[in-house]
Amino acid sequence: MDTSLPLGFGSIDHGDAEKAIAEAAVRCSNEGRWGADDVLGTLNFLDDAKRVQGAALVRRGRSFSLAQRFDQDGPQKGWRRRCNPVHTMLSSGLDAEFGPAEFPHGLGGADDVVFMPLQASTQWDGLGHIFDHGRAYNGRRASEVVTSEGDQVTGIETAAAHIAGRGVLLDVGRAVGENGELPDGFAITPDHLRATVEAQGVASSVGRGDLVLVRTGQLARARRDGWGDYAGGAAPGLSFTTADWLHGTEIAGLATDTWGFEVRPNEFPGAFQPLHQVAIPHIGLFIGEMWDLEELAEDCAADGVYDFLLAAAPLPVTGAVGAPVNPLAIK
Amino acid sequence: MDTSLPLGFGSIDHGDAEKAIAEAAVRCSNEGRWGADDVLGTLNFLDDAKRVQGAALVRRGRSFSLAQRFDQDGPQKGWRRRCNPVHTMLSSGLDAEFGPAEFPHGLGGADDVVFMPLQASTQWDGLGHIFDHGRAYNGRRASEVVTSEGDQVTGIETAAAHIAGRGVLLDVGRAVGENGELPDGFAITPDHLRATVEAQGVASSVGRGDLVLVRTGQLARARRDGWGDYAGGAAPGLSFTTADWLHGTEIAGLATDTWGFEVRPNEFPGAFQPLHQVAIPHIGLFIGEMWDLEELAEDCAADGVYDFLLAAAPLPVTGAVGAPVNPLAIK
Amino acid sequence: MDTSLPLGFGSIDHGDAEKAIAEAAVRCSNEGRWGADDVLGTLNFLDDAKRVQGAALVRRGRSFSLAQRFDQDGPQKGWRRRCNPVHTMLSSGLDAEFGPAEFPHGLGGADDVVFMPLQASTQWDGLGHIFDHGRAYNGRRASEVVTSEGDQVTGIETAAAHIAGRGVLLDVGRAVGENGELPDGFAITPDHLRATVEAQGVASSVGRGDLVLVRTGQLARARRDGWGDYAGGAAPGLSFTTADWLHGTEIAGLATDTWGFEVRPNEFPGAFQPLHQVAIPHIGLFIGEMWDLEELAEDCAADGVYDFLLAAAPLPVTGAVGAPVNPLAIK
Amino acid sequence: MDTSLPLGFGSIDHGDAEKAIAEAAVRCSNEGRWGADDVLGTLNFLDDAKRVQGAALVRRGRSFSLAQRFDQDGPQKGWRRRCNPVHTMLSSGLDAEFGPAEFPHGLGGADDVVFMPLQASTQWDGLGHIFDHGRAYNGRRASEVVTSEGDQVTGIETAAAHIAGRGVLLDVGRAVGENGELPDGFAITPDHLRATVEAQGVASSVGRGDLVLVRTGQLARARRDGWGDYAGGAAPGLSFTTADWLHGTEIAGLATDTWGFEVRPNEFPGAFQPLHQVAIPHIGLFIGEMWDLEELAEDCAADGVYDFLLAAAPLPVTGAVGAPVNPLAIK
Repeated sequence: MDTSLPLGFGSIDHGDAEKAIAEAAVRCSNEGRWGADDVLGTLNFLDDAKRVQGAALVRRGRSFSLAQRFDQDGPQKGWRRRCNPVHTMLSSGLDAEFGPAEFPHGLGGADDVVFMPLQASTQWDGLGHIFDHGRAYNGRRASEVVTSEGDQVTGIETAAAHIAGRGVLLDVGRAVGENGELPDGFAITPDHLRATVEAQGVASSVGRGDLVLVRTGQLARARRDGWGDYAGGAAPGLSFTTADWLHGTEIAGLATDTWGFEVRPNEFPGAFQPLHQVAIPHIGLFIGEMWDLEELAEDCAADGVYDFLLAAAPLPVTGAVGAPVNPLAIK
Repeated sequence: MDTSLPLGFGSIDHGDAEKAIAEAAVRCSNEGRWGADDVLGTLNFLDDAKRVQGAALVRRGRSFSLAQRFDQDGPQKGWRRRCNPVHTMLSSGLDAEFGPAEFPHGLGGADDVVFMPLQASTQWDGLGHIFDHGRAYNGRRASEVVTSEGDQVTGIETAAAHIAGRGVLLDVGRAVGENGELPDGFAITPDHLRATVEAQGVASSVGRGDLVLVRTGQLARARRDGWGDYAGGAAPGLSFTTADWLHGTEIAGLATDTWGFEVRPNEFPGAFQPLHQVAIPHIGLFIGEMWDLEELAEDCAADGVYDFLLAAAPLPVTGAVGAPVNPLAIK
Repeated sequence: MDTSLPLGFGSIDHGDAEKAIAEAAVRCSNEGRWGADDVLGTLNFLDDAKRVQGAALVRRGRSFSLAQRFDQDGPQKGWRRRCNPVHTMLSSGLDAEFGPAEFPHGLGGADDVVFMPLQASTQWDGLGHIFDHGRAYNGRRASEVVTSEGDQVTGIETAAAHIAGRGVLLDVGRAVGENGELPDGFAITPDHLRATVEAQGVASSVGRGDLVLVRTGQLARARRDGWGDYAGGAAPGLSFTTADWLHGTEIAGLATDTWGFEVRPNEFPGAFQPLHQVAIPHIGLFIGEMWDLEELAEDCAADGVYDFLLAAAPLPVTGAVGAPVNPLAIK
Repeated sequence: MDTSLPLGFGSIDHGDAEKAIAEAAVRCSNEGRWGADDVLGTLNFLDDAKRVQGAALVRRGRSFSLAQRFDQDGPQKGWRRRCNPVHTMLSSGLDAEFGPAEFPHGLGGADDVVFMPLQASTQWDGLGHIFDHGRAYNGRRASEVVTSEGDQVTGIETAAAHIAGRGVLLDVGRAVGENGELPDGFAITPDHLRATVEAQGVASSVGRGDLVLVRTGQLARARRDGWGDYAGGAAPGLSFTTADWLHGTEIAGLATDTWGFEVRPNEFPGAFQPLHQVAIPHIGLFIGEMWDLEELAEDCAADGVYDFLLAAAPLPVTGAVGAPVNPLAIK
């Protein structure tokens, strides 16, 4: 495995992002594949049989939460008004113990509230999150999908019941990186993904309907060294060259332990998240970001088993273009 | 099946709530059962073997979301400052299609934010949600558990990885009610629960480590007739007399399709949620509220199978005393 | 004074709202009056001399807050996701007295946070609040003024320093109503306004640069009888026929004690707030709503003095299309 | 004027903060001065006559907003969960121009909402903001004043009608600093305040009932150099030695252009805001922070007139322990 690849390496023409995006969009489009009314995109690949297959992977019964904690100590710095979640109490144990009695017979209660951008922490992007030249998934006009009142068509609630099935961890950080981590700016190509499968064993092969988790190791680094620019700065991530792989494998979704799924800086000068522009509006792919894969990855490295049942149903905030989730991997 | 039971019927002494609560608390206490440091309460019953058992119940692979939608059209009316979730867009498809370009090469994006009380919709109560005379679960002082900065000990994040296992629907509404619904004020006693198991078949038996879903039918009624006082008004629900059943069965959690889990009005004059006062601080029970069991219940009635894999991991808002959840039942 | 006027009386053609609005818009337009770059609208009438005149009205030095309290006990019911303000504590006196010490040497502190729609309570509408056929104040395209990032041109912060001057209370409720109140549905015409001035005395005359407060008495009724449909239901308010009066008097702003400034139901079948459609985008008028004029009105009735210094600077939330305010009247 | 004073200079014993605070508290206490029920503290000094005096200072009619803008580009970094205000649109001009018609006859509307800590930007501290050893203003127990439901006694709404009167700018930055600014860590002593009055002229004398604005120049520096640690880091501000001056002058309130009113780092090793601990619970002083005095200061320097009418009524969020304000100075 050649780990000396220059960061951002790929076979793409770095000079013309718009052309590369447009061509990939044509090659990878799932528009109309499941009918004009479809709102599920690649979740169509995740059928009942896949959930049966996923459940059959539960052997030891151990479960792993793949969510970061939702709190003030998060990485957000205000870009696009994304702040960290603010959790406040409506009443507390101090009120119950020392305050005036709110309830009879010694009952006390605590209550709370949260304010949070839906992209603040561990989340799924909905299909209304990204547009290409004013077009949303399935050829719809962006303006007819997402208004100020939210996503009227592909709101995250439409995915509420679907996202459970076979999960596969591709620990690229361990397979390709040094000390289990890829450096910031490292572009994960299809070759890296294949090399990771090879390193992990054939049971890690991914295909139609699978939910793929790509670990880069950046979250481990952020935990060790501080958030720094985790939210939007340089990061390892998928290369733009994985567009066809994402499309061709017919996976149902893919999540990473990074802020933005794809490599940052992006591989075209001046570009911004070009792979999103293909993956969401054209492939209809469900993308997860800021997942915590650390504990799961250690367990997989220890027992050599990288596939499991993944239950990762997003919180159905009506009309949301993304939603927080506490994904459970059960091995 | 005798469905002519008077509402609120039970063997309890209705004249002395405080005494009844105190006595039940002694009978049902799990304080110290799992050590002084325990934060999981009845989730200790939900072990790896139970998750293996749950996964084995997946036969057809069909999944059901048991969450209500999180939006303005909810039942909250402001009690204890509980409003319905407010979801707003930070940017929309209209901006992407018609506004000034925010990103290069035709990329457009929509983003959003939510403000919501954590008890606003489908949720798990955390162990810091309810106190008995200033005491929280495991004998801790309420003031040392839940401060204005949240639950410092049993915050919902401590449960993040645990809540997946064997789920069992007890459709009391169908088994005991008329037209599938229990009337408001109907107190579900242990006899009703046993009768429901009997009606559904022995596979519906519940025990150690199970996650029990009790359907009353009230949500179906609210959907048909309007929310009315769904949030805090009269409702069917568990009788105070189920305290020993909740304790003795050693179930890991119990959720209902009502606002408040127990029957309303409560069975003691002037009382407020007395069963909570036993169940949370003494039993250490995880209680779910406002779950949508309708679609699942129809499916169970149709195929006669009432147990399934339930994955219901709460959103790990750090220090939360309750948390929204999108529970998945997979049959 | 003829108080037997039919509700909604006026000389307008009730059959054609769109035509009536269009014609009034032409008659009353201030587009271009203060240049193409103008963002102040009728606040241009409120100059330094007017503030000197206002200050000279301070005789006794008594001040009146004209704000309702911002809290959960407000009239909002969720229309357009407008909830009542939710105020929560980040830390409280209980934490300071009984919780772990947060600060050294016995210092304790309490902190808080609010979530509120900017139209939830006493507020000024900004010039970006209302559009006529996609046009904002001064002929600008609505889409170029107010994006998802807020009002880029006439955000309320542009008015932050301006709104102080001569205030005049027109207590139409007392002058024209019964028991000091106008009934819901009562349309206040220019004649009613003139009759009120006449009843109060010539010192109540209003003109260029004045800030006019119109009291209907509806808030007093809501306080007595409960909010009911105060937020959007039937209400007394300005008749559509006041458009020319609003324009011709060259007042700087006008506020009422009602939710919506104009009479509700509106005077055209099926219409919605047609006077707003003329007043904000064409006149460029600053409209205040939900002001509490009760205490001030009692004082004015007692001493017969209806003009005063009004200082009513909106909270400069950047890009806001409306903003809360605590207006002070000083007599 | 000796500007070579060491930072943090003063006659206080730097070794014992607790003793110094306790002694100042005794010397400066206003407990009981206005009766056991008093909720206004030093606002009792601001009477009608003072408002008449303030209004008489309006000569040119020019008004100045002393508020910073409330937006994401503020100085907050999350300390105590204080984030910058998050303003989002409920509907925008793009919806009105391009979206589905929400209203009849061409009416369009935009609406918005804000989430903000009440200490996020320009604000008044309420009397419930700071406690001394568990005691709030007027000898009350902190726990009986500020619960999780807010300040039950001295909530900011009690001050809603009062804060208008004679304002006096003491531009210490110009009088004592270099290039109009005091360096971070500079402790403003009573001598500096007196020197500033002397430099500005006798009309700048302050006394009973006045609202004093102390400009340090730090905000100008932050605007020029970036926020840095404006929110809580090193800053010029009042010396602890001003406690007796604050008490003895009988001023009604004092506001600065800094985050925290007093010098930072504080003058005792390991201390935190010791002057707050005397000023709020013992003097009952209203303290304003993060005011923008720049434009006003330039005008005062130009015309040599440093006193004016100040109308600075806080937004009456019920039970708030601090509240945003858009203060107007009118000269």
